[in-house]
Amino acid sequence: MRKLSHQEIAKQRYTIEQLNYEKRFPIYVLLDNIRSLYNVGSIFRTADGARIAKLFLCGFTPHPPRKEIEKTALGATNSVPWEYHKDPVELLTRLKIEGVNICALEHTDKSIPYFELPDDAFPLCLIIGNEITGISKELVALADIAVDIPMFGMKQSLNAAVAFGIAAFEFARKANRL
Amino acid sequence: MRKLSHQEIAKQRYTIEQLNYEKRFPIYVLLDNIRSLYNVGSIFRTADGARIAKLFLCGFTPHPPRKEIEKTALGATNSVPWEYHKDPVELLTRLKIEGVNICALEHTDKSIPYFELPDDAFPLCLIIGNEITGISKELVALADIAVDIPMFGMKQSLNAAVAFGIAAFEFARKANRL
Repeated sequence: MRKLSHQEIAKQRYTIEQLNYEKRFPIYVLLDNIRSLYNVGSIFRTADGARIAKLFLCGFTPHPPRKEIEKTALGATNSVPWEYHKDPVELLTRLKIEGVNICALEHTDKSIPYFELPDDAFPLCLIIGNEITGISKELVALADIAVDIPMFGMKQSLNAAVAFGIAAFEFARKANRL
Repeated sequence: MRKLSHQEIAKQRYTIEQLNYEKRFPIYVLLDNIRSLYNVGSIFRTADGARIAKLFLCGFTPHPPRKEIEKTALGATNSVPWEYHKDPVELLTRLKIEGVNICALEHTDKSIPYFELPDDAFPLCLIIGNEITGISKELVALADIAVDIPMFGMKQSLNAAVAFGIAAFEFARKANRL
């Protein structure tokens, strides 16, 4: 087999103008108190690839413009719609009223594997919590669904940006089929 | 719903002793010229979670012990079997002789979506290439299968550690079902 050239790959890329016309998947993402600038940037880059509807940066999560975010976002802060909200409770309450299902990526007593998300879960808002402490109990209590990533090893969690990537691409794939 | 406590989550964890008895999935991973120490550490952490058989660090990919790798591996360098091989061609040639399918995560003229990996693809060795240049043409030419991650946005690639996580967890889930 043959590796594609940069020119061949570039031909398959959407432009920002095309993205604005393409329908985004009904997936909102809320980052609650993410600490690492590099994780935020990486999540922007992944969020572009999964064509999510909007990224909400909440609490002490850093937001653009920051050069450390750009280092890993590589331009995706321009293609992913985003908003900063200090208070995630107010935002989630409003989204719930608008009919958006709140989905926590967290170990809870009701978590289902991320690949078993029901088809009728959309539109949804996926919450990603702090790198060390996870999602706050207050936000978990607001969730309609919780998903987790079954772990086969010694450790019980993944890097936040990696875990987001695994869930986001599974959800985008599902939304793309519906 | 209720967030699980650290004690409740810890109960579900494997110990290193248990991991050595549990059958690992028939998934080898080869990192070819990965530049970032943090990506290598993050890949170790994800490789633990996906219980892969072995991680091969090749070319100029840094290997333990390095404190920057530990910063993101968080101990997974102890639970994931790994080897350093300067020359990936020699290693892949030996694996092919042993019946291992070589699987490139790369944009090629024959790439299939990562979620369409055939059940009979195992045992396989997943190659992850350099952050900027991808997998070398020489290694792509040795591959039996190529997979890529369909991208829905403006950008045509993900961070290497995130892309690895998406492919590795899909492959582990498939191997776990077989």
